[in-house]
Amino acid sequence: MSTMKAAIVEGFGEEFQVKDTAIPEPGPGQVLVKLIASGVCHTDLHAAEGDWPVKPKLPLIPGHEGVGIVEKIGDRVTEVAVGDLIGNAWLASACGHCQYCRTGWETLCESQTNGGYSVDGSFGEYMLVDARFAAHIPEGSDPHEIAPVLCAGVTVYKGLKMTEVKPGQWVAISGIGGLGHIAVQYAVAMGMRVIAIDVADDKLALAKKHGAEITVNAFAQDPAEVIQEKVGGTHGVLVTAVHPKAFGQAIGMTRRGGTIVFNGLPAGDFPAPIFDIVLKGLTIRGSIVGTRQDMIEALDFYAAGKIKPTFHTRPIEDINAVFDEMRHAKIDGRVVIDYTGTK
Amino acid sequence: MSTMKAAIVEGFGEEFQVKDTAIPEPGPGQVLVKLIASGVCHTDLHAAEGDWPVKPKLPLIPGHEGVGIVEKIGDRVTEVAVGDLIGNAWLASACGHCQYCRTGWETLCESQTNGGYSVDGSFGEYMLVDARFAAHIPEGSDPHEIAPVLCAGVTVYKGLKMTEVKPGQWVAISGIGGLGHIAVQYAVAMGMRVIAIDVADDKLALAKKHGAEITVNAFAQDPAEVIQEKVGGTHGVLVTAVHPKAFGQAIGMTRRGGTIVFNGLPAGDFPAPIFDIVLKGLTIRGSIVGTRQDMIEALDFYAAGKIKPTFHTRPIEDINAVFDEMRHAKIDGRVVIDYTGTK
Amino acid sequence: MSTMKAAIVEGFGEEFQVKDTAIPEPGPGQVLVKLIASGVCHTDLHAAEGDWPVKPKLPLIPGHEGVGIVEKIGDRVTEVAVGDLIGNAWLASACGHCQYCRTGWETLCESQTNGGYSVDGSFGEYMLVDARFAAHIPEGSDPHEIAPVLCAGVTVYKGLKMTEVKPGQWVAISGIGGLGHIAVQYAVAMGMRVIAIDVADDKLALAKKHGAEITVNAFAQDPAEVIQEKVGGTHGVLVTAVHPKAFGQAIGMTRRGGTIVFNGLPAGDFPAPIFDIVLKGLTIRGSIVGTRQDMIEALDFYAAGKIKPTFHTRPIEDINAVFDEMRHAKIDGRVVIDYTGTK
Amino acid sequence: MSTMKAAIVEGFGEEFQVKDTAIPEPGPGQVLVKLIASGVCHTDLHAAEGDWPVKPKLPLIPGHEGVGIVEKIGDRVTEVAVGDLIGNAWLASACGHCQYCRTGWETLCESQTNGGYSVDGSFGEYMLVDARFAAHIPEGSDPHEIAPVLCAGVTVYKGLKMTEVKPGQWVAISGIGGLGHIAVQYAVAMGMRVIAIDVADDKLALAKKHGAEITVNAFAQDPAEVIQEKVGGTHGVLVTAVHPKAFGQAIGMTRRGGTIVFNGLPAGDFPAPIFDIVLKGLTIRGSIVGTRQDMIEALDFYAAGKIKPTFHTRPIEDINAVFDEMRHAKIDGRVVIDYTGTK
Repeated sequence: MSTMKAAIVEGFGEEFQVKDTAIPEPGPGQVLVKLIASGVCHTDLHAAEGDWPVKPKLPLIPGHEGVGIVEKIGDRVTEVAVGDLIGNAWLASACGHCQYCRTGWETLCESQTNGGYSVDGSFGEYMLVDARFAAHIPEGSDPHEIAPVLCAGVTVYKGLKMTEVKPGQWVAISGIGGLGHIAVQYAVAMGMRVIAIDVADDKLALAKKHGAEITVNAFAQDPAEVIQEKVGGTHGVLVTAVHPKAFGQAIGMTRRGGTIVFNGLPAGDFPAPIFDIVLKGLTIRGSIVGTRQDMIEALDFYAAGKIKPTFHTRPIEDINAVFDEMRHAKIDGRVVIDYTGTK
Repeated sequence: MSTMKAAIVEGFGEEFQVKDTAIPEPGPGQVLVKLIASGVCHTDLHAAEGDWPVKPKLPLIPGHEGVGIVEKIGDRVTEVAVGDLIGNAWLASACGHCQYCRTGWETLCESQTNGGYSVDGSFGEYMLVDARFAAHIPEGSDPHEIAPVLCAGVTVYKGLKMTEVKPGQWVAISGIGGLGHIAVQYAVAMGMRVIAIDVADDKLALAKKHGAEITVNAFAQDPAEVIQEKVGGTHGVLVTAVHPKAFGQAIGMTRRGGTIVFNGLPAGDFPAPIFDIVLKGLTIRGSIVGTRQDMIEALDFYAAGKIKPTFHTRPIEDINAVFDEMRHAKIDGRVVIDYTGTK
Repeated sequence: MSTMKAAIVEGFGEEFQVKDTAIPEPGPGQVLVKLIASGVCHTDLHAAEGDWPVKPKLPLIPGHEGVGIVEKIGDRVTEVAVGDLIGNAWLASACGHCQYCRTGWETLCESQTNGGYSVDGSFGEYMLVDARFAAHIPEGSDPHEIAPVLCAGVTVYKGLKMTEVKPGQWVAISGIGGLGHIAVQYAVAMGMRVIAIDVADDKLALAKKHGAEITVNAFAQDPAEVIQEKVGGTHGVLVTAVHPKAFGQAIGMTRRGGTIVFNGLPAGDFPAPIFDIVLKGLTIRGSIVGTRQDMIEALDFYAAGKIKPTFHTRPIEDINAVFDEMRHAKIDGRVVIDYTGTK
Repeated sequence: MSTMKAAIVEGFGEEFQVKDTAIPEPGPGQVLVKLIASGVCHTDLHAAEGDWPVKPKLPLIPGHEGVGIVEKIGDRVTEVAVGDLIGNAWLASACGHCQYCRTGWETLCESQTNGGYSVDGSFGEYMLVDARFAAHIPEGSDPHEIAPVLCAGVTVYKGLKMTEVKPGQWVAISGIGGLGHIAVQYAVAMGMRVIAIDVADDKLALAKKHGAEITVNAFAQDPAEVIQEKVGGTHGVLVTAVHPKAFGQAIGMTRRGGTIVFNGLPAGDFPAPIFDIVLKGLTIRGSIVGTRQDMIEALDFYAAGKIKPTFHTRPIEDINAVFDEMRHAKIDGRVVIDYTGTK
């Protein structure tokens, strides 16, 4: 068999074509993976729509939360063997010798490739992975459940690190969707005390179940006011919400000297109040996905039983419906494409 | 003699009244200082105009860059003796036991008092200083020359620290005025490599004299473009300019992972481009004045001969003229009030 | 009533005299506390024996883990009110303005006073406390149970911070006695993964109960070997054991780049292998008690239900017996003096 | 021509054989370099004597401070081109994917190879260099003068970073030999205030010339005493001396909370006084060479004109004499082998 079923973007803003295409051959340093599962991320939507200044390749197979078994290895692969359970990642590769790669910041490498964006990803039955950047799935993992850790998990885990909130300190997590509900779990596992903010009560209930001590419905109450009153402001805020209002609210939630980390990638500007930022000594910071080291750590927390993403499986044939639901914010937790029933 | 000449603000937006007023008595923990010199800071202008949300006391004697001799000490003063040469500071006092004071961040203390704002300052022949927060002027200092170090100096020194730029790395200093021309000197003394940005060639020449390796006239060239081309972006940016445009330019000047520190206190918002901040992993941070420890360190650099503020002396009677010049950005370096000729 | 019962050291190496003595009067900044409970610490033994180069006052009432109710306040006390439940600490006071106090390192202040050492402590029915350095006991605390947090708790909590072990990384805790069994609990609450080392199986069982994932009996096995084999070395080691052998073993337990923190104060030298320290890039560090900020954080973890010291109450009359048991390492967890039955 | 002259160790403790041997062929990822100069390092002596637990290859061409022109490149080399001026390093290669390589700590990689130790080095007319780990020599450099930067320079530069001494703070540099005299220059360039300690007055004079503000002859005076009296202890100490006494003295030189970095690799133990380390909150740390990033930074400081190693050139034929001089500590600064006269 030399073809596979895949969901392909042929033009920005068009529907996916779910059809047969050639199974790729692993080149030097690459491995071929037969997929079991793949999470669906908001970034896949941005890729399919061609939203961002730097466009993805076309035609494109999106997807960067794929988990599967290594079937074949290319030349000079030493890190991965046939039969290994591995995942792909947004950071599909980095150069290894630039200033960022040399200093543990490969996520900023200007020569990086990105899974399901500048190289094909996990929305098909097979994918190629750069062996050096493969995520090794810990033994005993549920491939469908761990899939969202590969991007959503590592992104919020690194974002939480970048808040510099220490164990025992307060963090606010703004937005309890696909990213946020996992962020609550990482924050709790990292010893932080968590306040969850969303506009939907069922999401706040989920946050509470995962260990958030305080929840605020931002429709009903001003989160900044509630948080200042209850804990005197948080030490950090992780903004996973993409609504512009969330950014301004975050400023009001922190205590002096606190740090606000933006984890999403909405277009547009956020009106930053300079006077407040200076007077209160605030730090505002962007954080994007994570390095290989962050990935290993994020997976370790899953392996230790601390992380349980909420997910629903769907067949690859449903991809257009899934994207419609994503556009209308109708998804609860994360959708994971299931390839085990694909024939 | 029980009266002194002072420049007094009696109503926001009004002219200073330069007139005789009672010499204050030092209370417990306070000392009375006979002034030799006092720098004039932009904050004094904001105070006199009542620009900021939290208003200063009225009537008010502004000034927080005052240097003079201790004449009298109040009860329970152990840190300062009669005859000492000391200075006041924006951070006139802090509580000593809140979360910020306990952790080396007294500049964020919510019970702080501020020199020449919530308590009277150095625009008179005498002032009171909280002995615990007095700045001890190093032996051999020129009282007029060191005055600007007490606020401008410590502010940029702390701001530079907050950029987290390491020796040998590049920092851009945006705005080479009262703060910026001192910032260039601190940055050089801290081993940083300096790029100076301004719209006036004489200020850029001054920056060069103080060790800036690259200068950019932002009228003639796009500083972001020049900096990206010449050094691939800086590791940090210190924004002392108050023009809103400076804030946006700063984003363009940094390399990935860089830090931008705002040191001024303009009103209004700055449109922060979230996508860029996240993708480039940028940090934006506010920094206000410095702690007692920062003050000691900033004064140490002066004592070591590394800092030479540009200043012009004026008598206290000229205060209204000086403020007019400040409003029209006509001041070169720093104006220092000279009390040695006041009779 | 003007006298109280207290355990007094009149000469180094002599037995305690448990007898009546005058209840002290609070001076300016001080409060008088009627004790409910006081932990007994190894340092009290060193004080009573006069073991250390700088000797304590004589006669001396030791004790720095005391909890009680404020009965009377001296002049200029603003931080504490009559009726408050507070504790004393080893750091009885610090100067507030030296380089260490200014930078959040008051534990290194060279003018500090120490509870139950250079000032009288909690081994009596009443004690004086400097209001600025009082530990505020969180509402709902058990005074007897929280007493050991005041020194043992804050010491290991700060020690763990100084290991720089991050959530999800491995820490080894060497010695599961009065300090170590609390250290296991803090480490778990801080998100660390814990390996416990001791020579007694019942102590290792206690560590396991508190969340240690791996335990090693150092009599039966070489802990360095076991740890290298099982996890490739730990990121940090907290040495609470005082046996010199423990220090050398700690070097062998860490992975490259790891940090070893000494928390105890044994006399004598430890033969540090320079070649290994350099080649492996190790850090060895001493850590003593904690600041007021560390104290608040350590108490917060208790209030959040994460810390349960093992303790046994004894009347103050048993103090000489308790010290004998301490000398022979017969104490399980911590002894807490109970004053509620003292008449 | 297919042979070159090289200084070869054929048995530990034997004299070098200076003789003709085959010019090696660059394999994949390697380049062949025609040498111009090579520094001689103490480590070369340890290699030749087989002093250390892990032995070097035999026969061995030592040397890891070599500078020369790339003559030929192997397969898959992208970082280096024929004609480039490059250097080799102690860190000849690292794996690129272990926990240390992933986090900017490739100097701790357990699969590293070492120049002139586990792979042949620069004591011959030609050497092979792993292109990924080649040091790129800045334009305008003097190849003989920059050679010692490749190991001595990067080692002390990284060591100084690891002291965590900030600009304006005091560092003591113990031992002003091949490493120490360069350390003084880096410390000054990094904005530190320097105290130099040695037992030879001419070396102290050299330190003074390079900017040390205080010098102490450890034969004539107790450096700890002098330093405590003059500056209240240093914030950091860099120990480049290998005499065991230097390690103990370093403890006495620091102020509380200070950091002592060991930069040399003597055999044997150093008796660390635990009580002092804990009470004073000291940090003792080993630091070995530097990463590629450290190398680039160290070379940048040279290119900026801040670093001038003292060196004397010798022909490769003198190698046995040079090693004798090194054994008897008769070398002033650094010996650099000059290949420009070798025919």
